[in-house]
Amino acid sequence: MDFEPSAKVKALQAQLNAFMDEVVLPNEKVFEEQLKSAPSRWQIPPVMEEMKAQAKAQGLWNLFLPDKQYGAGLTNLEYAPLAEIMGRSPIAPEVFNCNAPDTGNMEVLVQYGNEDQQREWLLPLLDGSIRSCFSMTEPDVASSDATNIQASIVRDGDEYVINGRKWWSSGGGDPRCKIAIVMGKTDPAAPRHEQQSMILVPLDTPGVKIERIVNVFGYDHAPHGHAEISYTNVRVPAENIIWGEGKGFAIAQGRLGPGRIHHCMRSIGIAERALELMIERVSNRVAFGKRLADQGVIREWIADSRIEIEQARLLTLKAAYMMDTVGNKAARKEIAMIKVVAPNVALRVIDRAIQAFGGAGVSDDFPLAAAWANVRTLRLADGPDEVHRDSIARMELKSFKKE
Amino acid sequence: MDFEPSAKVKALQAQLNAFMDEVVLPNEKVFEEQLKSAPSRWQIPPVMEEMKAQAKAQGLWNLFLPDKQYGAGLTNLEYAPLAEIMGRSPIAPEVFNCNAPDTGNMEVLVQYGNEDQQREWLLPLLDGSIRSCFSMTEPDVASSDATNIQASIVRDGDEYVINGRKWWSSGGGDPRCKIAIVMGKTDPAAPRHEQQSMILVPLDTPGVKIERIVNVFGYDHAPHGHAEISYTNVRVPAENIIWGEGKGFAIAQGRLGPGRIHHCMRSIGIAERALELMIERVSNRVAFGKRLADQGVIREWIADSRIEIEQARLLTLKAAYMMDTVGNKAARKEIAMIKVVAPNVALRVIDRAIQAFGGAGVSDDFPLAAAWANVRTLRLADGPDEVHRDSIARMELKSFKKE
Amino acid sequence: MDFEPSAKVKALQAQLNAFMDEVVLPNEKVFEEQLKSAPSRWQIPPVMEEMKAQAKAQGLWNLFLPDKQYGAGLTNLEYAPLAEIMGRSPIAPEVFNCNAPDTGNMEVLVQYGNEDQQREWLLPLLDGSIRSCFSMTEPDVASSDATNIQASIVRDGDEYVINGRKWWSSGGGDPRCKIAIVMGKTDPAAPRHEQQSMILVPLDTPGVKIERIVNVFGYDHAPHGHAEISYTNVRVPAENIIWGEGKGFAIAQGRLGPGRIHHCMRSIGIAERALELMIERVSNRVAFGKRLADQGVIREWIADSRIEIEQARLLTLKAAYMMDTVGNKAARKEIAMIKVVAPNVALRVIDRAIQAFGGAGVSDDFPLAAAWANVRTLRLADGPDEVHRDSIARMELKSFKKE
Amino acid sequence: MDFEPSAKVKALQAQLNAFMDEVVLPNEKVFEEQLKSAPSRWQIPPVMEEMKAQAKAQGLWNLFLPDKQYGAGLTNLEYAPLAEIMGRSPIAPEVFNCNAPDTGNMEVLVQYGNEDQQREWLLPLLDGSIRSCFSMTEPDVASSDATNIQASIVRDGDEYVINGRKWWSSGGGDPRCKIAIVMGKTDPAAPRHEQQSMILVPLDTPGVKIERIVNVFGYDHAPHGHAEISYTNVRVPAENIIWGEGKGFAIAQGRLGPGRIHHCMRSIGIAERALELMIERVSNRVAFGKRLADQGVIREWIADSRIEIEQARLLTLKAAYMMDTVGNKAARKEIAMIKVVAPNVALRVIDRAIQAFGGAGVSDDFPLAAAWANVRTLRLADGPDEVHRDSIARMELKSFKKE
Repeated sequence: MDFEPSAKVKALQAQLNAFMDEVVLPNEKVFEEQLKSAPSRWQIPPVMEEMKAQAKAQGLWNLFLPDKQYGAGLTNLEYAPLAEIMGRSPIAPEVFNCNAPDTGNMEVLVQYGNEDQQREWLLPLLDGSIRSCFSMTEPDVASSDATNIQASIVRDGDEYVINGRKWWSSGGGDPRCKIAIVMGKTDPAAPRHEQQSMILVPLDTPGVKIERIVNVFGYDHAPHGHAEISYTNVRVPAENIIWGEGKGFAIAQGRLGPGRIHHCMRSIGIAERALELMIERVSNRVAFGKRLADQGVIREWIADSRIEIEQARLLTLKAAYMMDTVGNKAARKEIAMIKVVAPNVALRVIDRAIQAFGGAGVSDDFPLAAAWANVRTLRLADGPDEVHRDSIARMELKSFKKE
Repeated sequence: MDFEPSAKVKALQAQLNAFMDEVVLPNEKVFEEQLKSAPSRWQIPPVMEEMKAQAKAQGLWNLFLPDKQYGAGLTNLEYAPLAEIMGRSPIAPEVFNCNAPDTGNMEVLVQYGNEDQQREWLLPLLDGSIRSCFSMTEPDVASSDATNIQASIVRDGDEYVINGRKWWSSGGGDPRCKIAIVMGKTDPAAPRHEQQSMILVPLDTPGVKIERIVNVFGYDHAPHGHAEISYTNVRVPAENIIWGEGKGFAIAQGRLGPGRIHHCMRSIGIAERALELMIERVSNRVAFGKRLADQGVIREWIADSRIEIEQARLLTLKAAYMMDTVGNKAARKEIAMIKVVAPNVALRVIDRAIQAFGGAGVSDDFPLAAAWANVRTLRLADGPDEVHRDSIARMELKSFKKE
Repeated sequence: MDFEPSAKVKALQAQLNAFMDEVVLPNEKVFEEQLKSAPSRWQIPPVMEEMKAQAKAQGLWNLFLPDKQYGAGLTNLEYAPLAEIMGRSPIAPEVFNCNAPDTGNMEVLVQYGNEDQQREWLLPLLDGSIRSCFSMTEPDVASSDATNIQASIVRDGDEYVINGRKWWSSGGGDPRCKIAIVMGKTDPAAPRHEQQSMILVPLDTPGVKIERIVNVFGYDHAPHGHAEISYTNVRVPAENIIWGEGKGFAIAQGRLGPGRIHHCMRSIGIAERALELMIERVSNRVAFGKRLADQGVIREWIADSRIEIEQARLLTLKAAYMMDTVGNKAARKEIAMIKVVAPNVALRVIDRAIQAFGGAGVSDDFPLAAAWANVRTLRLADGPDEVHRDSIARMELKSFKKE
Repeated sequence: MDFEPSAKVKALQAQLNAFMDEVVLPNEKVFEEQLKSAPSRWQIPPVMEEMKAQAKAQGLWNLFLPDKQYGAGLTNLEYAPLAEIMGRSPIAPEVFNCNAPDTGNMEVLVQYGNEDQQREWLLPLLDGSIRSCFSMTEPDVASSDATNIQASIVRDGDEYVINGRKWWSSGGGDPRCKIAIVMGKTDPAAPRHEQQSMILVPLDTPGVKIERIVNVFGYDHAPHGHAEISYTNVRVPAENIIWGEGKGFAIAQGRLGPGRIHHCMRSIGIAERALELMIERVSNRVAFGKRLADQGVIREWIADSRIEIEQARLLTLKAAYMMDTVGNKAARKEIAMIKVVAPNVALRVIDRAIQAFGGAGVSDDFPLAAAWANVRTLRLADGPDEVHRDSIARMELKSFKKE
């Protein structure tokens, strides 16, 4: 269990950090300004494509993808400190083509897609020329239990017909978003975990309608956007099914492991940035005759933040290490643990920073409020905390009985 | 210490509850739709003025104002359960002309304004025909310590000249907002708490510029709006000073007592609504073969929420009772306590409700996310938690020494 | 809902406070010394009977008992502030004949006992000449669920035969303890809540054996003592049954309401004392060049302690008020709430005080460590927190459905 | 940063685990019984010396000591998982001669003692034939600030004369305890951190008096015992000074690093045992028709316990790794972090286990209550939490400024 980054990773860290400092962070405000001054919030600020080109030119591209043919071929443990760096800025992951949900979708296509599917959708995604969304969650049922899903995927000759309503199809607001991976039931009579399938649905297929963009705490997250999409008698060729009928649940499990830990890595990055911002702020503000940094309660916030970040980082590394060495399935307790820990730690650290910033903290002058809102969704996305806690307990109870 | 509402208050509660159910709650979405479809977000949805007219016609008007000549003449203890009801909806307080910061400003004018000031500004505020803002907080200093304030108010002949930059001038985005109460220093050489003064500044005075509206967690809070305002060589007649030079700190202290507790009462109202929404939601959703309402962890959330709300409500009532009986100054420990408790309780309850709602919780389909963001500002507004805690400790330590 | 103490109660508070300051507190160390120097820890330090005589002479006696014929005739709301005062010292409740479990046992006898039972057992208990224990909890089952109880009470002619093993029969170590109220099953085939009965068992009955005294965090709580008692073919006259066969559960419910709230009142008293001790300590100790009282983190402990105690006290008063006005059954949500709140608040406050005291805090030089251990049992006694939380949630969910 | 145990360590783990299962755990009750049936609590249960002999014979001896000449020569990282195993039982550390405060004292003698001191005191300590105590903390001052120390060590010819009162001289109750390391001031006029010295004082020196044994939450911790010792005109040869005059603070700093982390390792061991006990208990008890293990709230306790233990363990390993690689001084932020984390995690886990056990949890039938009390002292020993948090914050603030 060696967490020390290799020389290769250290070099990438240095390169990424430099890129963040020189390119990404200074462009956060530019991105926002371009978005604000554009005629619509649903078009891409030019600075994004410029930054992408630069990152790609430097080889800082698709680092998330363990596959050596298509991606950087890094292990989870190698990727962790790099994803953490990207997590420091809300606009960074896309710059390096490491943004959810495209990352998860690309992994699905690499692992379970056939050659045609890969040529048509994986290559442009890897290239960053199109983007994708993932249509799984439904507004009408508790989607924390994947067996609740109601969308139907029915075979009709050479086609499948898809009907259903999905939301939190994140990235669906992006004009470059061309393809959705849709989860639905092909056989409601099959065993519980073999009823679901995943299928590729180009967004320009008749019957696909983006109903609206769902806000998150007042943020529209433009131009990304969390889309609510209705699928009404949508017909796609039968070969668009991924892996095969009834494989939806299995793919989801495979997809979620890396997806969850990527969120965690990034959460630690934003927590680290919030702590740095807090330390800077309290070092410079004075109240009641003392620097904020000299007030005991605020020092306690700093110490607790450092303590919590440090532990969350180590647990992330351990989970990544286990995924690399014993596989995603054997590592699922560790994945569940870090999925609970990392967003909660980040929320606490960001919240303390907000408090230390006073009114500026809840405003959008600093990245703290937006970061909080964003991380808050991660206590729900890919399974709510309480479901993960229950799984952890089940595994603990089971391993006790075995002994 | 009798917390039982009088017959008069019970009647008002019933009337208010009916008004909320019949008029306000059904109009929440109408208000939002009118705002969304208007050419600008900074104009008033017609439904607001319609509701105000109805409320006024029913006598549900200015209930916050203890003054019998100008307001409803209710004590703080009587007003508490009524403010709680209003707190259930973000649009309700204005409907009943009980919205911050107008309430605080009206109280200042009732208590410290001279007859001219009252005629010109208090009467239209009481009437609901204009609105006001309060310019105290400054972006460049830690305003939790009021002595940090840098804006200057300098006497020049028959006028005062005001220079400074203020933000969180809430309500400054509203086109009906006509007047600001500005806090600044008239005499930086005076004793610490006599340097500040408050002065009335009509918003159409040359040199007053609304620089921008500050967002709160992505929300612009239109058409209310938290304005950042620059005051550049702004000249107003000398008689616009309130009470007198050097009285700013004293007025602020007087203003903040009731203001703080009104926030607390409303916080309890929104917490109560969040708990009700959560209970309704979990009663109807099923995951893993069980109603959410039958899952132990969620039941714990419900129990803890009820326990915390109940205690916060009792403490609010006690603080109100003490303000009524021993005065705001003698009640300042109780005010500080409830100012810490109520927003934190509401945040926890709302956060649990968000979690129980899943993705819907962080969206703007339900009032939870917006409520959370709004209440989060209350851990900072009118003094951050940590400053209140420090005051409480100081009072405890002092009373121990006396014994 | 008037929490203001009446003139009568204020007079009793003053009298009790004076008695505590002059008699009880100075005798805490005397009690301990007499216990330590006695040949056995299971005999009564003479100072206890002296204090009892003084208290009785002053009429500070049986204040807990709402019954006017047998006790002080105070309401729960009137008794609350008095019990709080008694709660300040571990030896105080017995001084005023208000010690558990005798209080609960006396209430059972007043409410459900027949004349013979009252004459034989209630009168000497009221007089303070004997003491009693309550044998309900069993070591072999989860007694949080009263239907788990296994002890049997079988009718045999004019007698009942009792078999079972009970622990946490508190007070069973006391040489003056003469009588146990034993809960067991008379009819395992009856409906769930009518299987149990309660019966009076004199401790000198053949077959009753005190197996041992159970320690609490290293404390033997001598000379009171939590006894583990085996009942082997114990025969008592049939008329020893209380109220009737199958009434055990109903009596337990009736018994626990007041018992629970008395524990809560006393918990607040000990929390208040811990806060005072902490304030005194930190006012006098210096570390790193500053009084502890001037260090931000410690001031936060003081503030949070005051905030939590204040709220717990108000909730206790509300629960007491409701028991007085709508009855124990209708008040059971409030009773459950305060049963969760008060011990947890006291534990947090005492723990902070321990921390502020440093090594002295965990020692037995100050009453903090013993108080913590004692209060810790209250998160389990009379129902563990989690069971009460579940009840609160059930009531919330039910009242929502009704609306 | 490789946390994977080496083959050597894995072998030791296996050997230690087997020894624990076969020898130590079954003898916990034997130890207790022998102690209880002995004429005095201050003599050594024979089973202890028997177990020590067995452990020594197996080479499970002095594993704590990194010095290769005198000890096992393990690094901190290697020792961590072994200390964790020993931490599972309160009697285990002594069995392996790895008990505080002897471990710290031996390290001081190895590092700073001269040859005579080592021959006379270190060798018998290493051999397990005598035991020692550490007299630093004083009852009259806040010892969290070591500069507060008042005991005096005054040179008088060839001797030093020691005067002072110390408590928490743990192990001082043990009849085998022969030597104390005493900290006092040799030069109150020297710079703040050069006033203190440490000196060896044989306990049979005239003027040394064990005043009493200080209890911890009702436990006397016999036959170890936390002694309060008065030193009155105690004269020892000048060569008993360790390292030299004015070196006391420096030695304390050096001593505390390893001491602190050993406590943390053991805390994790006891937390792990508490979790196992809880899992076993809830797997077998039924309440309200369901196994406790199937109740959501209890499953949450299990999950949170696992999550917290896992993180604490990783942070312990990281701190140990850093001590090994960059040294105790450079690792002091990590040491401070784990010193805050580990005891708090253990307390929470043990407390949940206590709650799950019901009344049995607070009794001494299971090791939980005693473990809680023991770990509670660790939030104070070797520096209270709040002092460590303050150091962490100071280091964070400083490293920010440097950047």
